[in-house]
Amino acid sequence: MVTRVVVWNEFVHERENQAVGTIYPDGIHEAIAAVLSSDPELSVVTATLDAPEHGLQAARLAATDVLFWWGHKAHGAVEDTIVDRVVQRVHEGMGLVVLHSGHFSKVFKRITGAPCALRWREAGERERLWVIDPTHPIARGLPPSIVLPRSEMYGEPFVVPEPDETVFISWYEGGEVFRSGLTFRRGAGRIFYFGPGHETYPIYHDPLIGVVLRNAAHWAHNPAPVWTDVASAPNVPVDRAPEPLEARGPSLHAPGQEGYR
Amino acid sequence: MVTRVVVWNEFVHERENQAVGTIYPDGIHEAIAAVLSSDPELSVVTATLDAPEHGLQAARLAATDVLFWWGHKAHGAVEDTIVDRVVQRVHEGMGLVVLHSGHFSKVFKRITGAPCALRWREAGERERLWVIDPTHPIARGLPPSIVLPRSEMYGEPFVVPEPDETVFISWYEGGEVFRSGLTFRRGAGRIFYFGPGHETYPIYHDPLIGVVLRNAAHWAHNPAPVWTDVASAPNVPVDRAPEPLEARGPSLHAPGQEGYR
Amino acid sequence: MVTRVVVWNEFVHERENQAVGTIYPDGIHEAIAAVLSSDPELSVVTATLDAPEHGLQAARLAATDVLFWWGHKAHGAVEDTIVDRVVQRVHEGMGLVVLHSGHFSKVFKRITGAPCALRWREAGERERLWVIDPTHPIARGLPPSIVLPRSEMYGEPFVVPEPDETVFISWYEGGEVFRSGLTFRRGAGRIFYFGPGHETYPIYHDPLIGVVLRNAAHWAHNPAPVWTDVASAPNVPVDRAPEPLEARGPSLHAPGQEGYR
Amino acid sequence: MVTRVVVWNEFVHERENQAVGTIYPDGIHEAIAAVLSSDPELSVVTATLDAPEHGLQAARLAATDVLFWWGHKAHGAVEDTIVDRVVQRVHEGMGLVVLHSGHFSKVFKRITGAPCALRWREAGERERLWVIDPTHPIARGLPPSIVLPRSEMYGEPFVVPEPDETVFISWYEGGEVFRSGLTFRRGAGRIFYFGPGHETYPIYHDPLIGVVLRNAAHWAHNPAPVWTDVASAPNVPVDRAPEPLEARGPSLHAPGQEGYR
Repeated sequence: MVTRVVVWNEFVHERENQAVGTIYPDGIHEAIAAVLSSDPELSVVTATLDAPEHGLQAARLAATDVLFWWGHKAHGAVEDTIVDRVVQRVHEGMGLVVLHSGHFSKVFKRITGAPCALRWREAGERERLWVIDPTHPIARGLPPSIVLPRSEMYGEPFVVPEPDETVFISWYEGGEVFRSGLTFRRGAGRIFYFGPGHETYPIYHDPLIGVVLRNAAHWAHNPAPVWTDVASAPNVPVDRAPEPLEARGPSLHAPGQEGYR
Repeated sequence: MVTRVVVWNEFVHERENQAVGTIYPDGIHEAIAAVLSSDPELSVVTATLDAPEHGLQAARLAATDVLFWWGHKAHGAVEDTIVDRVVQRVHEGMGLVVLHSGHFSKVFKRITGAPCALRWREAGERERLWVIDPTHPIARGLPPSIVLPRSEMYGEPFVVPEPDETVFISWYEGGEVFRSGLTFRRGAGRIFYFGPGHETYPIYHDPLIGVVLRNAAHWAHNPAPVWTDVASAPNVPVDRAPEPLEARGPSLHAPGQEGYR
Repeated sequence: MVTRVVVWNEFVHERENQAVGTIYPDGIHEAIAAVLSSDPELSVVTATLDAPEHGLQAARLAATDVLFWWGHKAHGAVEDTIVDRVVQRVHEGMGLVVLHSGHFSKVFKRITGAPCALRWREAGERERLWVIDPTHPIARGLPPSIVLPRSEMYGEPFVVPEPDETVFISWYEGGEVFRSGLTFRRGAGRIFYFGPGHETYPIYHDPLIGVVLRNAAHWAHNPAPVWTDVASAPNVPVDRAPEPLEARGPSLHAPGQEGYR
Repeated sequence: MVTRVVVWNEFVHERENQAVGTIYPDGIHEAIAAVLSSDPELSVVTATLDAPEHGLQAARLAATDVLFWWGHKAHGAVEDTIVDRVVQRVHEGMGLVVLHSGHFSKVFKRITGAPCALRWREAGERERLWVIDPTHPIARGLPPSIVLPRSEMYGEPFVVPEPDETVFISWYEGGEVFRSGLTFRRGAGRIFYFGPGHETYPIYHDPLIGVVLRNAAHWAHNPAPVWTDVASAPNVPVDRAPEPLEARGPSLHAPGQEGYR
């Protein structure tokens, strides 16, 4: 089964900051797409903030199994209508992998319903991601921990809902910890938050991070048919009730009010 | 410890539909407030959609421990800025009790991050709420089940996140089931969704429903100090890192870019 | 990927009660095995209480991906050493599908850590299983609900831990509800409890129940390598600590006491 | 409301190892009891392995709201009948606070249904416990983190079920992380696992650890009436069904077989 992936990136740092551009000359999205494309069962394209509709047209999202999201500096520039569209597609069954500063994206805040705040420090310090569940599909093929020689610190409290699964927790040289790999579900959609990925370190070039990203793409793909009416609240009329049922007494509603919901 | 409660109601049906007005002559909010006020440890006021800022001024919310929410017909009329304010206060620690059609309110959708859809039928049928956890604080003093002789059917799938706790599940005469009492947490806020309460049936006059509402008010009250910075993402500078730490190598950020987060 | 399934049955009712024997002439295990075997990706064998080691020899369990468990009358006759062995294998990654009265089996009580009690009535009444998450792998291919014309009632409270996922909730003609499809994880093992299956009704001959059983076999199969040391607590000596570390001061342990854990 | 606490300790190290005896001259149980007793709303007694029935007589447990459990070296010496009794009382509503090496106690394994394994190192290294939810009742009055200058390392993977709430995560000098404060529920019982407390360091003399222990005692106390029949599976006869119901057709059970469950 091929999984159709879109990697979305705001694509701002790489063009404003030469050092970032040196690490990711074609943008973080292209680097991630390359990492994913090494898996023949992943079919990967990219999209960026500056494209029409941020590259997330309804037709494209309809043909997407998993969306990766990288944003940091330009969360506010993402149009609310596009956010609504992405969230709706996640509810219908599109997987969502939120990377690094995407914790503060409109999409992740909307999906979790939480502030998604954390503490941070940019000091090039060592991060070690511990695998909490070595048999989780996202941890397939990993050693007990992944070491990133230089990373941005993200620290607790990470104000998200208690996750369905805790897959990674990070240790930092400077003394903090962070739940850096968490899963959630919303409607038919599977969501994975993954902490590493600050733009000034070449983290997406790390081979083990690549393993996580590819695993995440497969895990987040819900093969169930699209739940097209996931947001609708259908009426079940009395004559279609599962059990024989007679509507009782006078309806208290005035005529014509039934359809307001 | 006194719990300060605001009961919010859109207050539309009661004024448009004479039958509803007969059941709740002063509005559903006043009926619920009366039920809650029988508990001397609950200090209760009300607020409605048509008041300035829907009666949910920042100062009032700041002095509220638990907000009850009843809405049905006018979800779209609730201002987004007020929704933001309510959600922020829940994250800071205000409890939230969402009643009946409030499942489709902007507030509940925002807090859960889910579509919150369900199936429904209005036929005056019998509903029986089973207590799933008889030792849960919200079930204190209840018999094994509560029978509502006439109720609106709400049926599964109820598209919400897997709850922290399932407190009630309803059986309906017409053949459906519904998870009618669910708890969630977001930030410091405790959220309880409770299904019963259609406007055309005198459900909030039922003594056992009153027990649930009073229990819910107490349960949803988080006595912890307000988490005022729950949505902020503070920087932890190197010289305030918990462990001695030296920032490594040249920062890749250009000057002045540090504060963008 | 082929999933290797063992269907275990105490195989008592079928031989003691002629009516049950008429429904399941070769035993419930063979009926379930036949249902599963219609899927070419499932490789199915059976085991029963009266076999040596209840048919659950260590070598056989080591070669099992998913164990189905049907027991009712003879829970106490299952040897504790076999229970330990099954639980250990679940922790290592073997899937477990617990059927019907298996809720009171030693294995399920041990895996959940809960009393697993419920209420029951045998009256041949109608049961309707509602699909709570239509996009869950176990619900693949199902309609919104499954109707069993005659079933034993299992009612709430079902005293199990809050599940990872609620897949089915049952409605009963006599007025009760029951969380009839629940998932749990323990170690590397995925556990699914499924309510229907009383021996005096031909429930495992129902085509939709067959769909659930086949789906459950696939879902419960964790393809990760066996977590062989899941129960061990290895020491990490100072010279193998991830970070340079010097053991501080005199150890307070007397020599020779280090290995007791 | 006074909470009646029993602090249980195997009380072995203190008598075998002079260094431990120096830190806890009256035993770890008496040190913890003293810490708890500084709260006038906690009424505290102790019990040890060497007492008759390990000091956990049925009558005493029946009068206990919360049991603290410290064990390390002598898990195997705890009688299974006492374990059964403790687990039963937890299901009925007694709170349970499992400390440090109690992760490998029979009681905790039974309650969680999991292997409860972890990795460890005894090197006197620094541990920092981060508060994940600062508004959780168990974290009341704590700073963002607690530093233990010398501690035993407990590292992930900690093979327990995904907890209801993650209250603390520990950072270790040697590079590991550990979910050191976790909550679970089983039946009516609230369970808190808390990592710190190795016998060779004076951890229970730390004032902030004392705050945690006192908070945990209050949190674990479920004020609901004892759920005396939590493990029973009562029959609901047809004539006591909530809805009118006629038993259908001939029962397939032979007479006299109804009572076997």
